Amino acid sequence: MTITVAEIYKSMESIRRQAPVVHNITNYVVMNNTANALLAIGASPVMAHAEEEVEEMVNIASALVINIGTLSERWISSMFKASRQARKKGIPVILDPVGAGATAYRTKTARDLINNESPSIIRGNASEILALYDDKSKTKGVDSAASSDTAIDTARKLNEIHKCVVCVSGAIDYIVGEDKIMKIKNGHPLMSRVTGLGCTASALCGAFAAVEKSSFAATVEAMAVMGIAGEMAAAVAVGPGSLQTHFLDILYRLTEDDIKQHLKVEQCRI
Amino acid sequence: MTITVAEIYKSMESIRRQAPVVHNITNYVVMNNTANALLAIGASPVMAHAEEEVEEMVNIASALVINIGTLSERWISSMFKASRQARKKGIPVILDPVGAGATAYRTKTARDLINNESPSIIRGNASEILALYDDKSKTKGVDSAASSDTAIDTARKLNEIHKCVVCVSGAIDYIVGEDKIMKIKNGHPLMSRVTGLGCTASALCGAFAAVEKSSFAATVEAMAVMGIAGEMAAAVAVGPGSLQTHFLDILYRLTEDDIKQHLKVEQCRI
Amino acid sequence: MTITVAEIYKSMESIRRQAPVVHNITNYVVMNNTANALLAIGASPVMAHAEEEVEEMVNIASALVINIGTLSERWISSMFKASRQARKKGIPVILDPVGAGATAYRTKTARDLINNESPSIIRGNASEILALYDDKSKTKGVDSAASSDTAIDTARKLNEIHKCVVCVSGAIDYIVGEDKIMKIKNGHPLMSRVTGLGCTASALCGAFAAVEKSSFAATVEAMAVMGIAGEMAAAVAVGPGSLQTHFLDILYRLTEDDIKQHLKVEQCRI
Repeated sequence: MTITVAEIYKSMESIRRQAPVVHNITNYVVMNNTANALLAIGASPVMAHAEEEVEEMVNIASALVINIGTLSERWISSMFKASRQARKKGIPVILDPVGAGATAYRTKTARDLINNESPSIIRGNASEILALYDDKSKTKGVDSAASSDTAIDTARKLNEIHKCVVCVSGAIDYIVGEDKIMKIKNGHPLMSRVTGLGCTASALCGAFAAVEKSSFAATVEAMAVMGIAGEMAAAVAVGPGSLQTHFLDILYRLTEDDIKQHLKVEQCRI
Repeated sequence: MTITVAEIYKSMESIRRQAPVVHNITNYVVMNNTANALLAIGASPVMAHAEEEVEEMVNIASALVINIGTLSERWISSMFKASRQARKKGIPVILDPVGAGATAYRTKTARDLINNESPSIIRGNASEILALYDDKSKTKGVDSAASSDTAIDTARKLNEIHKCVVCVSGAIDYIVGEDKIMKIKNGHPLMSRVTGLGCTASALCGAFAAVEKSSFAATVEAMAVMGIAGEMAAAVAVGPGSLQTHFLDILYRLTEDDIKQHLKVEQCRI
Repeated sequence: MTITVAEIYKSMESIRRQAPVVHNITNYVVMNNTANALLAIGASPVMAHAEEEVEEMVNIASALVINIGTLSERWISSMFKASRQARKKGIPVILDPVGAGATAYRTKTARDLINNESPSIIRGNASEILALYDDKSKTKGVDSAASSDTAIDTARKLNEIHKCVVCVSGAIDYIVGEDKIMKIKNGHPLMSRVTGLGCTASALCGAFAAVEKSSFAATVEAMAVMGIAGEMAAAVAVGPGSLQTHFLDILYRLTEDDIKQHLKVEQCRI
């Protein structure tokens, strides 16, 4: 089992044609560039966090992205309410456990969302994923230097227990599904010097999951496109400022040939 | 009746010379690029949303921009409080009903603000404007694909009842005043792939209304400058990332000659 | 006493090597570009404002930056809670009193934080610094046209009473410590047309204070690097949009030689 260039590009074309509404309950820091990335790829982002409207917003959305980067009490209630509605309606929920492990508040919120609301996809860096299961893990804020392979076993356990796709991102991204793991070697170290590109990856998982039934395929496709656009942007950028600008331009213009030339995906043996 | 290049440029020079304070109670997604657009054109943006300080902030402002893009209970209270103070003080209030029609919460908030606080200018896309009056309209999130002319009748009714200028923006922008409608054909489709350029247009309406007594003229001028800067930016941009950057640069440097070369405004027959 | 190029660059290298966690409780408008500036210089930004987690986040941080740009009740409680924990833990607190003087709410919050929580460094423009001490000062929103030297006496009084370093920024930046004042002439007027570069300066003070024990030296170094990167960016920018992009690129790539070629710092006679 692998993912072909044609499959990835087919999903991209579906996003561009359907412009699926992706509902984001996300953090203040990245709202702007997350929305811009979703627009660049062809989706229709909406941001709404009030308890009074999240259910209705979920009802017009094709995917829900929950990101715990700047939590507070009311936002957490809305995250639960929106997730419940998404499950009821049958649209995919993507969870980005930003900073899980850094504080008990974040770890607990992320775990509660996983235990009670069954997200379809979880995407985080190694220390965030470790914190979702392993009480002994420690993280240094929201930026993880830990190698992504250190969290593969935890990702597998999470997948087993919660039946969700788990993506551990890093220099190499691992996407863990039932009985299969894919490995993506796209991307560039400069991407970690732009805030919120991890959050952008989660948002793109939402866009792909909106048009691709298999959560596993959607995650692999999204992470591949993210990494390819990021490395193409890094090749022409002179620093993190221009990287962000090029990234959006490239995402908007990405062709099947770009994917073909850059894609570095392979299946891992389990 | 029409708007001349000289009139538009005169208002721009007033903004650059006076640097009017424009108070924004706006959504999290666009705060940064809205503030940057106001600075680029020469205004002084302030953002303040706490009930404890909005009245005082209105008192040092020359225009108030209310944008309902990411609502919650307390923010709504502050929007009413600030609007009341603005009316009392006699400064223009610009309302951007982001996502009206998408949820009952947004539709109700926008309508309540219009019914009780008499904004001077309302700017939205076709589906948002339709939702302010017509209960049967449906919107697909905050991005509207509906053609702007579908909302002209609703805009006229809103103008009649509430005595406010209504701008329906889209590929063509319609500005509806008492007994007159102006039509602006500036702008570029790529602008819809950058988040918050609609919100930026509303903020620019605030800057122009701060220096131009006629709300109708201020709206026409703001929308013309918005569209011109956007299409000049699109002409040199390679995607939505560089469009945003060029847009701010061009807004900052915009000359009378630029306006002269690009302006596409005409009066509609009623 | 002066600051040498070697000292500034040594601190930059420490930031790049140690990637210190800088905890920001800051305003919505600038979160994205503040985080990007911290990443560009090599630090690890975290943003967290919930009372439930600020103490824990302070515990993994090497500096705390408090910025009052978009206040509300709960955020203020968190600012106090985080500051107390920072003092307890012994890490530097940097206060940016955005808009002090514009509303009583901001002035009071800033003064209360100074009186009760003893920040190590305060950075603001002239009207903001004046408002921290002088009840008769008036500000025009958050952008100050007042010359920075008008606030030197107030800065000295604040330093005397509260034992904190006070930086008055403007065309010329003054850094006031015990028995010494340094003057930095770097920077460029175009920087005032980009939102949040003042807030970015405060965040950089946090990054330098995280690796440099002397709050005075840290502030001088941060303001010098800020001004140099800003003027290098302005030299190649065509407007405020490209200035922001170039600023981040240049901050990321800044060399010892860049500092050597541009540094304009001198001691003032007291």
